[in-house]
Amino acid sequence: MGNEAPAVDPVVESTAADIAAMRIRGAAAIADAAAAALAIQAERSDAVTPGAFRTQLRVAARTLYETRPTAVSLPNALRYVLRGTDGDSVDELRSSTIDRAETFREDLEDAQTTLGKIGSNRLRDGDVVMTHCHSTDALACIEAALDDGKRIEAIVTETRPRKQGHITARELREWGVPVTLIVDNAARRYLDDADHVLVGADSIAADGGVINKIGTSGLAVNARERGVPVMVAAQTIKLHPGTMTGHTVAIEMRDETEVLTSSERSEITDLEDGDDGFTVENPAFDVTPPRHVDAIVTEHGQFPPESVVTLMRELFGETTTEPWET
Amino acid sequence: MGNEAPAVDPVVESTAADIAAMRIRGAAAIADAAAAALAIQAERSDAVTPGAFRTQLRVAARTLYETRPTAVSLPNALRYVLRGTDGDSVDELRSSTIDRAETFREDLEDAQTTLGKIGSNRLRDGDVVMTHCHSTDALACIEAALDDGKRIEAIVTETRPRKQGHITARELREWGVPVTLIVDNAARRYLDDADHVLVGADSIAADGGVINKIGTSGLAVNARERGVPVMVAAQTIKLHPGTMTGHTVAIEMRDETEVLTSSERSEITDLEDGDDGFTVENPAFDVTPPRHVDAIVTEHGQFPPESVVTLMRELFGETTTEPWET
Amino acid sequence: MGNEAPAVDPVVESTAADIAAMRIRGAAAIADAAAAALAIQAERSDAVTPGAFRTQLRVAARTLYETRPTAVSLPNALRYVLRGTDGDSVDELRSSTIDRAETFREDLEDAQTTLGKIGSNRLRDGDVVMTHCHSTDALACIEAALDDGKRIEAIVTETRPRKQGHITARELREWGVPVTLIVDNAARRYLDDADHVLVGADSIAADGGVINKIGTSGLAVNARERGVPVMVAAQTIKLHPGTMTGHTVAIEMRDETEVLTSSERSEITDLEDGDDGFTVENPAFDVTPPRHVDAIVTEHGQFPPESVVTLMRELFGETTTEPWET
Amino acid sequence: MGNEAPAVDPVVESTAADIAAMRIRGAAAIADAAAAALAIQAERSDAVTPGAFRTQLRVAARTLYETRPTAVSLPNALRYVLRGTDGDSVDELRSSTIDRAETFREDLEDAQTTLGKIGSNRLRDGDVVMTHCHSTDALACIEAALDDGKRIEAIVTETRPRKQGHITARELREWGVPVTLIVDNAARRYLDDADHVLVGADSIAADGGVINKIGTSGLAVNARERGVPVMVAAQTIKLHPGTMTGHTVAIEMRDETEVLTSSERSEITDLEDGDDGFTVENPAFDVTPPRHVDAIVTEHGQFPPESVVTLMRELFGETTTEPWET
Amino acid sequence: MGNEAPAVDPVVESTAADIAAMRIRGAAAIADAAAAALAIQAERSDAVTPGAFRTQLRVAARTLYETRPTAVSLPNALRYVLRGTDGDSVDELRSSTIDRAETFREDLEDAQTTLGKIGSNRLRDGDVVMTHCHSTDALACIEAALDDGKRIEAIVTETRPRKQGHITARELREWGVPVTLIVDNAARRYLDDADHVLVGADSIAADGGVINKIGTSGLAVNARERGVPVMVAAQTIKLHPGTMTGHTVAIEMRDETEVLTSSERSEITDLEDGDDGFTVENPAFDVTPPRHVDAIVTEHGQFPPESVVTLMRELFGETTTEPWET
Amino acid sequence: MGNEAPAVDPVVESTAADIAAMRIRGAAAIADAAAAALAIQAERSDAVTPGAFRTQLRVAARTLYETRPTAVSLPNALRYVLRGTDGDSVDELRSSTIDRAETFREDLEDAQTTLGKIGSNRLRDGDVVMTHCHSTDALACIEAALDDGKRIEAIVTETRPRKQGHITARELREWGVPVTLIVDNAARRYLDDADHVLVGADSIAADGGVINKIGTSGLAVNARERGVPVMVAAQTIKLHPGTMTGHTVAIEMRDETEVLTSSERSEITDLEDGDDGFTVENPAFDVTPPRHVDAIVTEHGQFPPESVVTLMRELFGETTTEPWET
Repeated sequence: MGNEAPAVDPVVESTAADIAAMRIRGAAAIADAAAAALAIQAERSDAVTPGAFRTQLRVAARTLYETRPTAVSLPNALRYVLRGTDGDSVDELRSSTIDRAETFREDLEDAQTTLGKIGSNRLRDGDVVMTHCHSTDALACIEAALDDGKRIEAIVTETRPRKQGHITARELREWGVPVTLIVDNAARRYLDDADHVLVGADSIAADGGVINKIGTSGLAVNARERGVPVMVAAQTIKLHPGTMTGHTVAIEMRDETEVLTSSERSEITDLEDGDDGFTVENPAFDVTPPRHVDAIVTEHGQFPPESVVTLMRELFGETTTEPWET
Repeated sequence: MGNEAPAVDPVVESTAADIAAMRIRGAAAIADAAAAALAIQAERSDAVTPGAFRTQLRVAARTLYETRPTAVSLPNALRYVLRGTDGDSVDELRSSTIDRAETFREDLEDAQTTLGKIGSNRLRDGDVVMTHCHSTDALACIEAALDDGKRIEAIVTETRPRKQGHITARELREWGVPVTLIVDNAARRYLDDADHVLVGADSIAADGGVINKIGTSGLAVNARERGVPVMVAAQTIKLHPGTMTGHTVAIEMRDETEVLTSSERSEITDLEDGDDGFTVENPAFDVTPPRHVDAIVTEHGQFPPESVVTLMRELFGETTTEPWET
Repeated sequence: MGNEAPAVDPVVESTAADIAAMRIRGAAAIADAAAAALAIQAERSDAVTPGAFRTQLRVAARTLYETRPTAVSLPNALRYVLRGTDGDSVDELRSSTIDRAETFREDLEDAQTTLGKIGSNRLRDGDVVMTHCHSTDALACIEAALDDGKRIEAIVTETRPRKQGHITARELREWGVPVTLIVDNAARRYLDDADHVLVGADSIAADGGVINKIGTSGLAVNARERGVPVMVAAQTIKLHPGTMTGHTVAIEMRDETEVLTSSERSEITDLEDGDDGFTVENPAFDVTPPRHVDAIVTEHGQFPPESVVTLMRELFGETTTEPWET
Repeated sequence: MGNEAPAVDPVVESTAADIAAMRIRGAAAIADAAAAALAIQAERSDAVTPGAFRTQLRVAARTLYETRPTAVSLPNALRYVLRGTDGDSVDELRSSTIDRAETFREDLEDAQTTLGKIGSNRLRDGDVVMTHCHSTDALACIEAALDDGKRIEAIVTETRPRKQGHITARELREWGVPVTLIVDNAARRYLDDADHVLVGADSIAADGGVINKIGTSGLAVNARERGVPVMVAAQTIKLHPGTMTGHTVAIEMRDETEVLTSSERSEITDLEDGDDGFTVENPAFDVTPPRHVDAIVTEHGQFPPESVVTLMRELFGETTTEPWET
Repeated sequence: MGNEAPAVDPVVESTAADIAAMRIRGAAAIADAAAAALAIQAERSDAVTPGAFRTQLRVAARTLYETRPTAVSLPNALRYVLRGTDGDSVDELRSSTIDRAETFREDLEDAQTTLGKIGSNRLRDGDVVMTHCHSTDALACIEAALDDGKRIEAIVTETRPRKQGHITARELREWGVPVTLIVDNAARRYLDDADHVLVGADSIAADGGVINKIGTSGLAVNARERGVPVMVAAQTIKLHPGTMTGHTVAIEMRDETEVLTSSERSEITDLEDGDDGFTVENPAFDVTPPRHVDAIVTEHGQFPPESVVTLMRELFGETTTEPWET
Repeated sequence: MGNEAPAVDPVVESTAADIAAMRIRGAAAIADAAAAALAIQAERSDAVTPGAFRTQLRVAARTLYETRPTAVSLPNALRYVLRGTDGDSVDELRSSTIDRAETFREDLEDAQTTLGKIGSNRLRDGDVVMTHCHSTDALACIEAALDDGKRIEAIVTETRPRKQGHITARELREWGVPVTLIVDNAARRYLDDADHVLVGADSIAADGGVINKIGTSGLAVNARERGVPVMVAAQTIKLHPGTMTGHTVAIEMRDETEVLTSSERSEITDLEDGDDGFTVENPAFDVTPPRHVDAIVTEHGQFPPESVVTLMRELFGETTTEPWET
């Protein structure tokens, strides 16, 4: 690609640095910043040929991508914008890129609200919703239902080990929603009182698998067995692009101290220097197969999990090669 | 029944008092004490007619029964002994009752060891066993397998809210069993590494339902979905006699502080005087239907859960009327 | 067996005639009359040897059996009584037979009440019960629950083609039970509002299959899919003895006019002389496999359907040869 | 939008009036009339700017839409045409709109025939088809199979409460198809004789749910349990646009007299002034989840129900905002 | 037990030798010989006290048992006879033992015929039966059905690796039964044409598991998925006594040459000295869980697999200790 | 379309002849040759009007199509190229056609490699893969995993009747993969040791059904029951275009001698002139419904089987009319 590094705009560099240093964090914030940086790259590009413009843009995208290659929303933002770069002249390429970035950012800003309205349409007045963990996308659905005047009650699992269910419970109480808090073990028993299971997603795979907080898959299996529909609320920046090429999503293994205090540990094993035969495993997420999920609600509408790959391809393109690779 | 209260032996009275005051506690201890008291009643009876003897024995049984009418092992002990009272003379009645009580107590003493050997026969060298909660009957199976020289590994769920999995983990470590501790939410994920799910039982119903620590039923549903067999280890004193007549087992609802500290509660709801819209439900047990259990292992052998009612009838008789009622 | 027809008591003959002529009808009435006739045969027997007594009794049983060989309760009554004929002298045989017949008749008289109490124990205050067809055994369970002060609501399927659901609805209304009547097609939709499906049985097979009004099996499959337990209420005279030997229960095919009036028929096909290509099939019953039933409630307690064969053998003996055959 | 109401062509007004007054009725007729009205609006538009033309068209669409906002085919027709309005000048907009309307109407005219041929390809010579209710789309599949020379037999459920199965039976007999008529309760029993379940649809939701005549979902659950594939025949005007945004389809509750005559009612309850405790529920439709359906056959080909949302989006666009809203 | 070896009759010794040397082989022949030997032991016993008689009999049983400790029918025969040894004098013990052995042998002789009649009752005229492997018990059911004048057709799997399906096919053809032979892989496809799956059993476990020719369990899973009932034909000598105490049945691993000829092997791997990375596994049997089997047909009637443990206990006693151990 | 046969290029004619004579064979080779022939037709066309050009191209496509109307890859190649023929002038049509054909051929050349990389991403280091039959697409996934340094082990079913598992075993051994060979009947037993089932496809239907070597569907049902995911590797030329219009895929019935040698036959039936009652059925393929498959891996990424119809439509267009028909 020539023997000179193409000019990447300083804003791209500083955005990349901010993402890498986690000064910019959270799926939506990263995606927004990345799209904004590409728009600035397009605006300020000094390229005189379409080829040079495209090369610069690709290099800018790659620079951003490499800061957090395992993030989900980052490549989605880059892919979405690059797919909209279109035209035969530098001017056309520039304006189409800027427009595309703008569209992405506007959609992103509205996504949770839009998604919430869509999700709330699945809820009826008087419904009881069982939640797991804490998800702003999932809560947006309940909030929209309340705004529509529906009465909603919630059964909230505490969600060990980090008990994010407490956060969910607090927010729902602030909205006046009657809440019943239970341990995760009690979920099956209370499924008979629930009209829906409603969860968010950490990411969603091309094969329809929903990666979400540990415990989701076991809950979904029981919900199917009890005849309770399972609804996943997730903005499309959660769609995992790498999974289109078969990549499985790496599951973060977290620190054992979330599960076991050191005094609890010492009650289990007395060995001072540690006990090789005793292990704590603390995976953050699990994968729920699509056959145990009834609907994935996004800001582009609801989908059966088996068809979400189509939305993924429509928004972010086929990923057999990454668009920022040569 | 005459206008005089039949003579109940003082030992029966004191045993009843001890059970009522929970000085005698635990399923096995209660059953043993009750059988012993009936033997003493028989031995010391001053009845001169078979009818009087039987009446005294029934009254003694009722006295014991009424101390803890919801315990499971107590009526089983009483029923077992009374079913063995047989003969045409006071002497025959006396000796048959004493013999029957003795058999019961001997069987009870050996029950866990016998059961452990039977359960261990289902385990192969190198197997990985997933446990839930803490059950000495379940652990007896692993101990017997270790005694047979089999290598066993364990995946232990912590079992919220009371984390009895820690006790299980400690005992297994003392025996040198490699242990992986997980939160309950992670059970489905680790089922793929398990060859068995092994749990105890609080009680077992005539319809084959297994009442056990909250979370068992959800785990069993997932085990079936993952192709992992589920084995319940339970002495026959856990067979619930009332369920033969359709009674459902009352599930104890425990204190919310096991689930939520007061500081956690105050983070969820700020109201000083309590918050009517916020509830914590803390059931101690749940019911696993027989179709999700592969085998119930008792000291009388292993049974598919659907046929355990036959064993129940064989040991304790048909219960459409209680034998201590007139 | 000699070359002379053994003396069969005239009461046996007249009872047989009454059953054959359907002057005695209904499962319970037939069973009661047959047991009574055997008792009279025993009482009045002029046999002088035990062998002669037994032969007379077998011939009496055969005489009764042959009047309605496809009835279910008749062979059960005969088998039950003959299994109790025991002793070394004619006197012993006589008295044991009379006692056994008496026991049978007393149990039969109480059976529905006892069964109702057992079944009602499975119902909780406030439960909603979905019924199909009309069954006095099933209704006895609801009646007993009402007697215990439980509030019960009912969803009643109309049960085409004969709409026996109307009879069920009327009886429940007379007891003050709130009733929602639906067409059979609406059952799955209303299962989400039901806590139990409760039905009777025409007969029950040794393999655990429940033969009941057409539509029961489809309802049970849907109840399992929706997580609603299915309870069958049936006195033990409904246990089908022939099925122990693998016999399938013949399903009665009823007249097409129950399904289609002649004016409805003529709107479907114009042919005056009938239309060979148009058939109406009107089976009275279907078979629900045991895996879709949670409990069978009898006057001897409740059973998983898979273990009811044990009760069948206990009450009526193994049937590889009929006891009234030589 | 200016302060003047844009000119809506009188034909649009009269079409709207005809739809509102149900002079135009039936899914296909309404869709056809709406598309025709938009074409006339486009043809006769006096707009001089593209913006004005588009505004007029939107207002026309809204006028038509508001006549029957819950109809399914009406918004589909409007959406389809508006999605094809394309161009930079009034002339281009006009002609593209007219062409699009024409395409829609032609496709609509051929839809049932095309769909029938596609559906018939799933049927083999000699197959037995079980139908529920009456659907011209479903029958078109059988008719096409007969036209191909295949021998087809039918098992027809009567479909309480309105017994539309009689209409299906009559049409099939007119074509010479051997018909067996059964009550709905007998469906599971006769599934063992069927090679396919074939039904139409009232509407189809974005989550793959099939809204069809009450009883369909229960039949589909049984068909899956019996291993019989379920095929739904539905033109694409049955795809429900509102469900893409999570809206559930309102199920019509019909009059109780379809279920119960007043004389039947009086036999159930004697109260003159009505009986508050007795209710008849008569829902017209139910929802079959996609996991119980094998294929949805449309005039655009067959689809697994989970992917029909993609077709919906392709034909009618994403519906997070309605195209006739500003 | 004294310091002298009790006198074991020479016939017991020679029978034991014949079994050990496999001069007596086959489940039925071994069982018959063992029962006969115990009868002779009883007849010829020189014991003068009941205790001595019992000791001799136990030693005789142990002598026989130890020849083939993994055979299934051998301990069943021994247990059955020893359970019948009853009485207070040597004479009573002797005659009861001889009678019991005689009963066992007579039942055994008739077992297959009786079982065949029972199994045949599950078959209707015109049924199509799919078989796997070769089982004389299973074929006895078909033969009895043919004797009853029923027309039966068969789909026969070849049953790799040893193709015992060919033997089944030949016998069925000799009886005039139309046979379709298929490879095992084609079983699911032809299940749609079958009314029953009918297999024998190598042994049956207390938990209801059916140990039978490799491939049975996979076939049963598919039969359940296709809605075809599965019937197992097995004499009660196949009930595995050791499994009551939790023992799993050891599965024989057979020689790889049944699967692969040496020339086939050399085409897969060229290494002269063998290839450590290439293994052939050739298990003879697999285990079908009870939930995939509808009925087990024995000479004592048919049973759901979940209740066969009751029959096992009835015939052979509880096995927590072996009766021939001191 | 004129009364003169349009000029079809001789290369088209010779390619057609080569395909017809099976000188060109194999799905990929046929597709490649057909696309190349259309490119030459476009290049050498003497058409002077766009209409004439298109007509010639259609006739060329039809000529090619008719040589093997049941092949799957042939119509896919033709459809793909014709869908890219675009433009207003002959020159534009020509160059777009040539470009499209080139794209097709390049994609085809890379397809297996690309697909292999995608499929390998689903495999983790240390995984055990069970294969059925022999598929170069499936093996490409394993090869790519090995290239990534992953250790993979394989359980290979022999795949009666033709034992293509031997070919799979040989190739895997050449790559150093540890292989365990089993008979097809042993698959369920060894599924507990497998992390994936990996198969190819003969073709894939629009309803998500996977047509593959006989035995695949039964294996997939068992894999679901055992909790093992099923992965199908298939290039998009395997997507069956006719199935979009409901056509079922005709299953080839192969010669019985693959199943049975003549000497084996003569052992089964002795009749010299054949035995009408004895049939061997030897279907080459079966159909696995989408609910038993987890992912279909293609060179365009992985898809849940339910959404593969969308890819089919994207690549090859809607097929309600074939593009080479007038």
